[in-house]
Amino acid sequence: MTKEIEINPDLDLVLERVIDVPRELVWKAWTDVEQLKRWFVPKPWSVADCRIDIRPGGEFTTVMRSPEGEEFPSSGCFLEVVENERLVFTSALLPGFRPTPKVSGDHELPFTAFILLEPEGVGTRYRAILIHGDPQSKKTHEDMGFESGWGAALDQMVEMISSEQ
Amino acid sequence: MTKEIEINPDLDLVLERVIDVPRELVWKAWTDVEQLKRWFVPKPWSVADCRIDIRPGGEFTTVMRSPEGEEFPSSGCFLEVVENERLVFTSALLPGFRPTPKVSGDHELPFTAFILLEPEGVGTRYRAILIHGDPQSKKTHEDMGFESGWGAALDQMVEMISSEQ
Repeated sequence: MTKEIEINPDLDLVLERVIDVPRELVWKAWTDVEQLKRWFVPKPWSVADCRIDIRPGGEFTTVMRSPEGEEFPSSGCFLEVVENERLVFTSALLPGFRPTPKVSGDHELPFTAFILLEPEGVGTRYRAILIHGDPQSKKTHEDMGFESGWGAALDQMVEMISSEQ
Repeated sequence: MTKEIEINPDLDLVLERVIDVPRELVWKAWTDVEQLKRWFVPKPWSVADCRIDIRPGGEFTTVMRSPEGEEFPSSGCFLEVVENERLVFTSALLPGFRPTPKVSGDHELPFTAFILLEPEGVGTRYRAILIHGDPQSKKTHEDMGFESGWGAALDQMVEMISSEQ
Protein backbone atom coordinates (compact mmCIF):
# COMPACT_ATOMS: atom_id res chain seq x y z
CA MET A 1 0.00 0.00 0.00
CA THR A 2 1.14 3.55 -0.64
CA LYS A 3 2.24 5.51 2.40
CA GLU A 4 0.43 8.51 3.82
CA ILE A 5 -0.03 10.99 1.01
CA GLU A 6 2.08 14.12 1.10
CA ILE A 7 -0.08 16.92 -0.24
CA ASN A 8 1.61 19.38 -2.58
CA PRO A 9 -0.60 22.50 -2.72
CA ASP A 10 0.81 23.40 -6.15
CA LEU A 11 -0.24 20.09 -7.65
CA ASP A 12 -3.03 18.60 -5.56
CA LEU A 13 -6.72 19.15 -4.87
CA VAL A 14 -8.40 18.00 -1.68
CA LEU A 15 -12.01 17.64 -0.67
CA GLU A 16 -12.40 16.64 2.97
CA ARG A 17 -15.68 16.36 4.83
CA VAL A 18 -17.26 14.42 7.67
CA ILE A 19 -20.46 12.83 6.42
CA ASP A 20 -23.26 11.26 8.34
CA VAL A 21 -23.27 7.83 6.71
CA PRO A 22 -21.18 4.72 7.50
CA ARG A 23 -18.17 4.11 5.34
CA GLU A 24 -19.31 0.64 4.21
CA LEU A 25 -22.16 2.36 2.37
CA VAL A 26 -19.84 5.00 0.93
CA TRP A 27 -17.66 2.20 -0.35
CA LYS A 28 -20.67 0.55 -1.96
CA ALA A 29 -21.72 3.84 -3.55
CA TRP A 30 -18.27 4.10 -5.16
CA THR A 31 -17.94 0.50 -6.33
CA ASP A 32 -21.44 -0.62 -7.35
CA VAL A 33 -22.22 0.45 -10.92
CA GLU A 34 -25.93 1.04 -10.35
CA GLN A 35 -25.28 3.11 -7.25
CA LEU A 36 -22.49 5.17 -8.79
CA LYS A 37 -24.69 6.09 -11.73
CA ARG A 38 -27.13 7.76 -9.35
CA TRP A 39 -24.76 10.21 -7.66
CA PHE A 40 -21.45 10.53 -9.50
CA VAL A 41 -22.18 13.69 -11.51
CA PRO A 42 -24.15 16.69 -10.34
CA LYS A 43 -27.63 16.97 -11.85
CA PRO A 44 -28.82 17.88 -14.46
CA TRP A 45 -25.83 15.98 -15.88
CA SER A 46 -26.04 12.22 -15.62
CA VAL A 47 -23.98 9.04 -15.99
CA ALA A 48 -24.90 7.36 -19.28
CA ASP A 49 -22.66 4.35 -18.71
CA CYS A 50 -20.19 3.03 -16.18
CA ARG A 51 -17.81 0.08 -15.98
CA ILE A 52 -16.12 -0.94 -12.76
CA ASP A 53 -13.69 -3.85 -12.47
CA ILE A 54 -12.57 -3.47 -8.92
CA ARG A 55 -8.95 -4.72 -8.80
CA PRO A 56 -5.55 -3.18 -9.58
CA GLY A 57 -5.37 -2.74 -13.34
CA GLY A 58 -9.14 -3.14 -13.64
CA GLU A 59 -11.28 -0.81 -15.69
CA PHE A 60 -12.91 2.33 -14.35
CA THR A 61 -14.88 4.01 -17.10
CA THR A 62 -17.65 6.57 -16.83
CA VAL A 63 -19.59 8.26 -19.58
CA MET A 64 -21.07 11.58 -18.52
CA ARG A 65 -24.07 12.96 -20.36
CA SER A 66 -24.84 16.67 -20.59
CA PRO A 67 -28.42 17.96 -20.32
CA GLU A 68 -28.25 18.37 -24.14
CA GLY A 69 -27.43 14.69 -24.53
CA GLU A 70 -23.77 15.04 -25.44
CA GLU A 71 -21.62 12.23 -24.00
CA PHE A 72 -18.14 12.51 -22.51
CA PRO A 73 -16.42 9.19 -21.82
CA SER A 74 -13.43 8.97 -19.54
CA SER A 75 -11.45 5.86 -18.82
CA GLY A 76 -8.78 4.79 -16.41
CA CYS A 77 -7.90 1.96 -14.08
CA PHE A 78 -7.78 1.15 -10.41
CA LEU A 79 -4.43 1.05 -8.64
CA GLU A 80 -5.25 0.11 -5.05
CA VAL A 81 -8.38 -1.43 -3.60
CA VAL A 82 -8.71 -1.74 0.18
CA GLU A 83 -12.35 -2.45 0.94
CA ASN A 84 -14.18 0.22 2.96
CA GLU A 85 -10.96 2.18 3.35
CA ARG A 86 -9.01 3.20 0.30
CA LEU A 87 -9.75 3.35 -3.41
CA VAL A 88 -7.09 4.63 -5.77
CA PHE A 89 -7.54 5.11 -9.50
CA THR A 90 -5.83 7.04 -12.29
CA SER A 91 -6.61 8.50 -15.69
CA ALA A 92 -2.95 8.19 -16.72
CA LEU A 93 -3.28 4.43 -17.28
CA LEU A 94 -6.02 2.58 -19.12
CA PRO A 95 -7.29 -0.86 -18.08
CA GLY A 96 -4.44 -3.38 -17.89
CA PHE A 97 -2.12 -0.50 -16.89
CA ARG A 98 -1.67 0.61 -20.52
CA PRO A 99 -0.51 4.26 -20.69
CA THR A 100 -3.21 6.61 -21.93
CA PRO A 101 -2.43 7.61 -25.54
CA LYS A 102 -0.88 11.00 -26.01
CA VAL A 103 -3.41 13.29 -27.59
CA SER A 104 -3.24 16.90 -28.53
CA GLY A 105 -5.72 19.30 -27.04
CA ASP A 106 -6.82 20.36 -23.63
CA HIS A 107 -9.10 17.51 -22.70
CA GLU A 108 -6.23 15.26 -21.65
CA LEU A 109 -6.02 15.50 -17.90
CA PRO A 110 -3.78 12.99 -16.15
CA PHE A 111 -4.55 12.64 -12.45
CA THR A 112 -4.62 10.03 -9.73
CA ALA A 113 -7.45 10.03 -7.19
CA PHE A 114 -7.31 8.71 -3.64
CA ILE A 115 -10.68 8.13 -1.97
CA LEU A 116 -9.95 7.65 1.73
CA LEU A 117 -12.58 6.59 4.24
CA GLU A 118 -12.16 6.61 8.02
CA PRO A 119 -14.83 5.96 10.63
CA GLU A 120 -15.78 9.09 12.56
CA GLY A 121 -18.47 8.50 15.18
CA VAL A 122 -21.33 6.81 13.34
CA GLY A 123 -20.29 8.55 10.14
CA THR A 124 -17.25 8.81 7.92
CA ARG A 125 -14.34 11.13 7.43
CA TYR A 126 -14.33 11.37 3.64
CA ARG A 127 -11.26 12.55 1.78
CA ALA A 128 -10.87 12.80 -1.97
CA ILE A 129 -7.32 13.74 -2.94
CA LEU A 130 -6.49 14.34 -6.59
CA ILE A 131 -2.82 14.53 -7.47
CA HIS A 132 -1.36 15.83 -10.73
CA GLY A 133 2.03 15.89 -12.43
CA ASP A 134 2.23 19.61 -13.16
CA PRO A 135 0.53 22.84 -12.01
CA GLN A 136 -1.27 23.24 -15.35
CA SER A 137 -3.12 19.94 -14.93
CA LYS A 138 -4.16 20.92 -11.42
CA LYS A 139 -5.39 24.29 -12.66
CA THR A 140 -7.37 22.71 -15.50
CA HIS A 141 -9.07 20.42 -12.99
CA GLU A 142 -9.75 23.33 -10.67
CA ASP A 143 -11.18 25.44 -13.49
CA MET A 144 -13.46 22.55 -14.49
CA GLY A 145 -15.04 23.06 -11.08
CA PHE A 146 -13.48 20.34 -8.96
CA GLU A 147 -14.58 21.68 -5.63
CA SER A 148 -18.19 22.52 -6.45
CA GLY A 149 -18.55 19.49 -8.72
CA TRP A 150 -17.13 16.87 -6.37
CA GLY A 151 -18.91 18.56 -3.46
CA ALA A 152 -22.30 18.49 -5.19
CA ALA A 153 -21.75 14.86 -6.20
CA LEU A 154 -20.92 13.99 -2.60
CA ASP A 155 -24.14 15.68 -1.47
CA GLN A 156 -26.04 13.50 -3.93
CA MET A 157 -24.29 10.42 -2.62
CA VAL A 158 -25.11 11.17 1.00
CA GLU A 159 -28.73 11.89 0.04
CA MET A 160 -28.95 8.60 -1.87
CA ILE A 161 -27.54 6.59 1.03
CA SER A 162 -29.67 8.39 3.63
CA SER A 163 -32.86 7.83 1.64
CA GLU A 164 -32.22 4.09 1.66
CA GLN A 165 -31.39 3.66 5.32
CA MET B 1 -3.84 -9.06 -10.17
CA THR B 2 -4.14 -8.12 -13.82
CA LYS B 3 -5.41 -10.83 -16.10
CA GLU B 4 -3.34 -12.52 -18.80
CA ILE B 5 -1.90 -9.77 -20.97
CA GLU B 6 -3.35 -9.39 -24.44
CA ILE B 7 -0.48 -8.42 -26.70
CA ASN B 8 -1.21 -5.75 -29.30
CA PRO B 9 1.55 -5.97 -31.93
CA ASP B 10 1.03 -2.32 -32.89
CA LEU B 11 1.66 -1.12 -29.35
CA ASP B 12 3.68 -3.73 -27.49
CA LEU B 13 7.21 -5.11 -27.38
CA VAL B 14 7.99 -8.60 -26.13
CA LEU B 15 11.23 -10.30 -25.16
CA GLU B 16 10.73 -13.98 -24.32
CA ARG B 17 13.48 -16.42 -23.54
CA VAL B 18 14.11 -19.57 -21.51
CA ILE B 19 17.13 -18.99 -19.31
CA ASP B 20 19.16 -21.48 -17.34
CA VAL B 21 18.81 -19.94 -13.88
CA PRO B 22 16.07 -20.38 -11.27
CA ARG B 23 13.44 -17.68 -11.10
CA GLU B 24 14.07 -16.87 -7.43
CA LEU B 25 17.50 -15.57 -8.46
CA VAL B 26 16.04 -13.65 -11.41
CA TRP B 27 13.62 -12.03 -8.98
CA LYS B 28 16.52 -11.07 -6.71
CA ALA B 29 18.46 -9.65 -9.67
CA TRP B 30 15.48 -7.38 -10.47
CA THR B 31 14.67 -6.26 -6.93
CA ASP B 32 18.02 -5.96 -5.12
CA VAL B 33 19.64 -2.58 -5.82
CA GLU B 34 23.24 -3.84 -5.75
CA GLN B 35 22.43 -6.72 -8.07
CA LEU B 36 20.41 -4.63 -10.52
CA LYS B 37 23.27 -2.15 -10.86
CA ARG B 38 25.51 -4.93 -12.18
CA TRP B 39 23.38 -6.08 -15.11
CA PHE B 40 20.59 -3.60 -15.94
CA VAL B 41 22.29 -1.70 -18.77
CA PRO B 42 24.55 -3.17 -21.41
CA LYS B 43 28.23 -2.36 -20.96
CA PRO B 44 30.04 -0.02 -21.48
CA TRP B 45 27.07 1.93 -20.11
CA SER B 46 26.48 1.54 -16.37
CA VAL B 47 23.95 2.22 -13.62
CA ALA B 48 25.10 5.25 -11.61
CA ASP B 49 22.27 5.05 -9.13
CA CYS B 50 19.16 3.02 -8.43
CA ARG B 51 16.26 3.21 -5.99
CA ILE B 52 13.83 0.36 -5.48
CA ASP B 53 10.86 0.50 -3.09
CA ILE B 54 9.19 -2.77 -3.86
CA ARG B 55 5.45 -2.21 -3.33
CA PRO B 56 2.61 -0.74 -5.43
CA GLY B 57 3.23 2.99 -5.68
CA GLY B 58 6.85 2.52 -4.56
CA GLU B 59 9.74 4.18 -6.35
CA PHE B 60 11.68 2.62 -9.19
CA THR B 61 14.40 4.97 -10.33
CA THR B 62 17.52 4.22 -12.34
CA VAL B 63 20.24 6.58 -13.47
CA MET B 64 22.11 5.33 -16.51
CA ARG B 65 25.61 6.58 -17.20
CA SER B 66 27.12 6.73 -20.68
CA PRO B 67 30.76 5.80 -21.30
CA GLU B 68 31.40 9.57 -21.51
CA GLY B 69 29.96 10.07 -18.03
CA GLU B 70 26.67 11.65 -19.00
CA GLU B 71 23.79 10.61 -16.73
CA PHE B 72 20.21 9.83 -17.72
CA PRO B 73 17.77 9.42 -14.85
CA SER B 74 14.43 7.76 -15.30
CA SER B 75 11.78 7.36 -12.66
CA GLY B 76 8.55 5.50 -12.24
CA CYS B 77 6.72 3.32 -9.77
CA PHE B 78 5.76 -0.28 -9.22
CA LEU B 79 2.18 -1.37 -9.85
CA GLU B 80 2.13 -5.08 -8.99
CA VAL B 81 4.58 -7.12 -6.98
CA VAL B 82 4.13 -10.90 -6.81
CA GLU B 83 7.37 -12.36 -5.50
CA ASN B 84 9.28 -14.62 -7.89
CA GLU B 85 6.50 -14.37 -10.43
CA ARG B 86 5.37 -10.99 -11.60
CA LEU B 87 6.79 -7.48 -11.41
CA VAL B 88 4.90 -4.62 -13.03
CA PHE B 89 6.12 -1.02 -13.21
CA THR B 90 5.38 2.07 -15.24
CA SER B 91 7.04 5.29 -16.34
CA ALA B 92 3.64 7.01 -16.65
CA LEU B 93 3.33 7.42 -12.87
CA LEU B 94 5.96 8.64 -10.44
CA PRO B 95 6.32 7.32 -6.88
CA GLY B 96 3.05 7.60 -4.97
CA PHE B 97 1.18 7.15 -8.28
CA ARG B 98 1.65 10.80 -9.24
CA PRO B 99 1.28 11.27 -13.00
CA THR B 100 4.56 12.02 -14.76
CA PRO B 101 4.67 15.73 -15.67
CA LYS B 102 3.90 16.59 -19.25
CA VAL B 103 7.10 17.70 -20.93
CA SER B 104 7.78 18.74 -24.44
CA GLY B 105 10.35 16.84 -26.43
CA ASP B 106 10.98 13.29 -27.47
CA HIS B 107 12.47 11.88 -24.31
CA GLU B 108 9.09 11.35 -22.68
CA LEU B 109 8.24 7.71 -23.17
CA PRO B 110 5.27 6.38 -21.23
CA PHE B 111 5.26 2.60 -20.96
CA THR B 112 4.31 -0.14 -18.55
CA ALA B 113 6.57 -3.18 -18.18
CA PHE B 114 5.52 -6.66 -17.11
CA ILE B 115 8.35 -8.96 -16.02
CA LEU B 116 6.86 -12.47 -15.89
CA LEU B 117 8.74 -15.46 -14.52
CA GLU B 118 7.63 -19.09 -14.84
CA PRO B 119 9.60 -22.17 -13.83
CA GLU B 120 10.77 -24.19 -16.83
CA GLY B 121 12.77 -27.31 -15.91
CA VAL B 122 15.54 -26.08 -13.63
CA GLY B 123 15.45 -22.71 -15.35
CA THR B 124 12.99 -19.92 -16.03
CA ARG B 125 10.72 -18.84 -18.83
CA TYR B 126 11.45 -15.11 -18.82
CA ARG B 127 9.07 -12.66 -20.45
CA ALA B 128 9.44 -8.89 -20.58
CA ILE B 129 6.36 -7.24 -22.08
CA LEU B 130 6.37 -3.49 -22.62
CA ILE B 131 3.03 -1.91 -23.44
CA HIS B 132 2.47 1.60 -24.80
CA GLY B 133 -0.46 3.92 -25.39
CA ASP B 134 0.22 4.76 -29.02
CA PRO B 135 2.25 3.37 -31.94
CA GLN B 136 4.70 6.29 -31.81
CA SER B 137 5.76 5.45 -28.25
CA LYS B 138 6.30 1.83 -29.22
CA LYS B 139 8.37 2.87 -32.23
CA THR B 140 10.50 5.25 -30.15
CA HIS B 141 11.23 2.42 -27.72
CA GLU B 142 12.02 0.08 -30.59
CA ASP B 143 14.34 2.60 -32.24
CA MET B 144 16.16 3.08 -28.93
CA GLY B 145 17.16 -0.57 -29.32
CA PHE B 146 14.72 -2.38 -27.07
CA GLU B 147 15.43 -5.84 -28.38
CA SER B 148 19.22 -5.72 -28.49
CA GLY B 149 19.39 -3.62 -25.31
CA TRP B 150 17.09 -5.70 -23.14
CA GLY B 151 18.59 -8.87 -24.64
CA ALA B 152 22.15 -7.83 -23.83
CA ALA B 153 21.12 -6.81 -20.32
CA LEU B 154 19.47 -10.21 -19.81
CA ASP B 155 22.70 -11.91 -20.96
CA GLN B 156 24.57 -9.90 -18.32
CA MET B 157 22.02 -10.91 -15.69
CA VAL B 158 22.31 -14.62 -16.49
CA GLU B 159 26.10 -14.35 -16.47
CA MET B 160 26.04 -12.60 -13.09
CA ILE B 161 23.74 -15.20 -11.55
CA SER B 162 25.68 -18.13 -13.06
CA SER B 163 29.02 -16.80 -11.79
CA GLU B 164 27.67 -16.77 -8.23
CA GLN B 165 26.11 -20.21 -8.14
